[in-house]
This record gives sequence, C-alpha cells and structure tokens, in this order.
Amino acid sequence: MKRQELIEQIHRKKSFLCVGLDTDLKKIPKFLLDYEDPIFEFNKRIIDATKDFCVAYKPNIAFYEALGAKGWISLEKTLNYIPNDIFTIADAKRGDIGNTSALYASTFFKTYPFDSVTIAPYMGVDSITPFLEYENKWTILLALTSNLGSKDFQTQLTFDNEYLYEKVLKASKSWGSIENTMYVVGATKAELLSDIRKIIPDHFLLVPGVGAQGGSLESVAKYGINKDVGLLVNSSRGIIYSGNSNDFDVLASESARSLQKQMANFL
Amino acid sequence: MKRQELIEQIHRKKSFLCVGLDTDLKKIPKFLLDYEDPIFEFNKRIIDATKDFCVAYKPNIAFYEALGAKGWISLEKTLNYIPNDIFTIADAKRGDIGNTSALYASTFFKTYPFDSVTIAPYMGVDSITPFLEYENKWTILLALTSNLGSKDFQTQLTFDNEYLYEKVLKASKSWGSIENTMYVVGATKAELLSDIRKIIPDHFLLVPGVGAQGGSLESVAKYGINKDVGLLVNSSRGIIYSGNSNDFDVLASESARSLQKQMANFL
Repeated sequence: MKRQELIEQIHRKKSFLCVGLDTDLKKIPKFLLDYEDPIFEFNKRIIDATKDFCVAYKPNIAFYEALGAKGWISLEKTLNYIPNDIFTIADAKRGDIGNTSALYASTFFKTYPFDSVTIAPYMGVDSITPFLEYENKWTILLALTSNLGSKDFQTQLTFDNEYLYEKVLKASKSWGSIENTMYVVGATKAELLSDIRKIIPDHFLLVPGVGAQGGSLESVAKYGINKDVGLLVNSSRGIIYSGNSNDFDVLASESARSLQKQMANFL
Repeated sequence: MKRQELIEQIHRKKSFLCVGLDTDLKKIPKFLLDYEDPIFEFNKRIIDATKDFCVAYKPNIAFYEALGAKGWISLEKTLNYIPNDIFTIADAKRGDIGNTSALYASTFFKTYPFDSVTIAPYMGVDSITPFLEYENKWTILLALTSNLGSKDFQTQLTFDNEYLYEKVLKASKSWGSIENTMYVVGATKAELLSDIRKIIPDHFLLVPGVGAQGGSLESVAKYGINKDVGLLVNSSRGIIYSGNSNDFDVLASESARSLQKQMANFL
C-alpha cells in the first residue's frame, strides 16, 4: 500500500486505529473451539466487526507460530480475509544478516503478502535494507518500545549524549524514506514523542501500548500527530477480548468504535 | 541439554563444530527436487554425513519460514531426525514484550523442542526472561554479530566509554547463568574476543562467520576457548553446499571432518 492510500483511508474513516490480532486459543470464547479453525473463525468475526473503525490489522506472529504449521495456515486465511484497502502489519520483529533478512522479507512480503513487517534494529543496516527493496511495502523499525525492558538498552545514553533509540532513528531514516519506513514508539513513552518528532517529523509511527499496557491516547495524539496524521495506534487485548460469549464480536465492535470516536476528535 | 552433557560431547568428539542447516531450495542438488520433501531429504543426508564430526545443528528459521506451513513441517521432521545427544539451536533471533516472548519460548522449546533459541536483545530484560524459565533450555543472545551492520549500533560507544554489546553482556549475564545463557559473537570479530572473555569468562559462545563470511578458526580458538572449551563454531554454507551432485553428502562429510580435525588441535 502507498503512503497516500493509507492517509486517505485515515481521513475517510476518521480513524488511525490498528487492531492487533493477538489471537490466543486460551482466551477466545469457548464455543469457537468446536470449529475446524477456531483462530481463523475468531479473526473473521473480529474483522467483520471492526473493519469500519480501523485502518490497519496487526497479527502478532508469535501467536500463530506457537501453534506450528496449522498456525501459519490460520494466519494465511486471516490475511486473505482482511479487505484489500486495509493496511496489514506482520508484527514479527525479525532481523538477521543480509542474505537471511532477504528470506524474512520474502516470507512477509511474498509468501504471506503483508503490507509491512516489524523489524528489530540491533543487527544494523544490512539486516534492514532487504526489506526496503520491495515496492509499496513497509519496514516498521523498533525504536522505543512500550515494555519495561526498553530502559535496558534503548534508553542507554551514548557518548555524545543521545539515547540509543535516537541513534536508531537518525541512522535508519536515511536507509529508507517516509514512503517505506515507519517506527514503533510505545504509547507509554508519549512524553518523549515531541523529541522523537524533531528527528522524524514526517514518518508514520506505529504506537502500541494504549489500553492494557496503560498508555494514553490523548498524549499520543497531542505529541505524535503530524501534518499527514502520521500515527497508527494499536490496541489488541482492549478490543479483541472485550467479551467472551456469543456476542464477543459485538462488544469488540463497540470497543473499536469507541476508540475511533476518540480519534476523530484529534483529526 | 545440560551444560555438562554438551561439554562431554565436545571432548568425546574432539569437536566444537555446529553445522548450520540453512537449507535453500535454490541451492540444493537438483535431483532432490523430485522427492516429496526436498528440504528434509537434504537435511537427513547432511545429518547422516556430519553427525560424527559436529556437536550441534542450527537451522536458521528464516529458510523454513519462507516456505510457509510446509517449511515448518520440514523443520519439524529435521528436528526429530537429529540424534538426541546432539545440541539443537533454533536460529530465530526472536524477541518481543514479555507475554509475547513467552509464546516464542513455547514455539521453540515445546512446539518444536529445540535445546536453544537465538534472541535479539534490543527490547531488554522482559523480552528475554520468559526463555530462561525452561529447565535445560538455552537462550543464545546476540552480542556482537558477524555482519557489516554490527557497527551501526552494537559497537556504538556509550557515555561511560563501553560499547553497546558490552552493556548487553554485562546486563544480561545476571538475568540467566552459564547453565542457560550463551552469546553470539561473530568470527569476524575475533580480535575482540579477549575483551569479551574478560566480561563473560565462563559462558559458551556461538560463533558464526567462519568460512563464507571470512572469519578465522585459529583466531577464534586462540582468543575464545575457556576451561570448558566454551565455544560452538558454526559453519553453514561451507559445509552443506560442498557439492551439488549425487555425492554432495560425501563432500559435506569431508568438509565437516576437516573442520573437526582442525578443532581437535585446539582441544
């Protein structure tokens, strides 16, 4: 998907919501376990219920991979079911030496034709460039994540008084462009978004951590929105596990609509 | 596998060789493509041909994942075929927030019962600890990798004049122990091994980059060996693609034996 198509979708739906499809057999309503593919059955109903209120879907690959080969089949069916005009993110956090990263790019851009994939930056430039070679596909690089462990290395101060995540932003923004690179910045770090926007004023940010992890949508919008909106705010558990009986999809729809309405106020 | 079993195997075989199963449909001998599962057929013959000369096998997961669900089936068959007394490494370079890393741990320690998995450290402590909770399973953390991009962030100097990879070693060595944590240090960085051994004298190191990537076995052994050997040196392309006709396995066996003989001199 092209940048302009994503921006148009955001304005059309008055939403920058991404729904995280972190689908866990232990958490989905029990009645779905009678279906042949409960993971897909759950995702299908969540997609039907939320597609008017979100602009992106983000399956976290760990949830599918943990089920072995059949998890990948559920993932493929889910990807095929997502409407073509909605942005898709493989939240895979991959990264390896160049020739191996090329295979990961092939996995998530060809075998499973997602629009984008999340990448960990630790291995540097040649672990990332193979992803940037695909037209209209996106690399979403981890910068400052929402978890406790982000303080261990990401906010490590370097000798010239910058944080490591700032080095990641500054180095990598020249590897790609605003047409093919986004960054992950956790909603729990919203107070740092103004500083981050000084380094990357125009890039899209993927912001997890609103909801279950405690981040505030208002702060994220206040400090993160740019002239093209430039935000995809993700909610996973807060939407998809809104209920656990037959009407779980109705409740998920309400949760997504509620977030979309809040987002509309910031646009 | 316990640490002591690995050490005993190394002394018994006079080898600290790890064979990388980076099996690529484009590179394996053509005649194997007639089999139902060419990837497994190749791996089976490579394992038969090299198992006496190596102490570990390391499939890089990217090669299997790129083939979709059937790649995971080939991976599973390969893992089942590896003799039980040989150490197995899922080279997956995963890492996510805590509850998601727990799923990745489940993937590579339960769904596919490897002895160990490689992890990228960028997300910090809670992305790593879920892997450390499994008994007799190993976390192999990226420290200083063999590729060009390692200079982008890993050798970034921090404000107190240490490299980032040194911070990673110092922080993470207290999260686990020498019984469940290893580190990846590229053979192309052998000159830094003495410094690394000052920080982690007793840990095992997984050392890729000998062979195709240009690292020297002699330097790695000279600066890296500790009182328990403490090294697993990986070769992938240099062994498995030694030939591409019917006798490819014989040639792979010779390549593995040649490395094993060199290794015996250092033990």
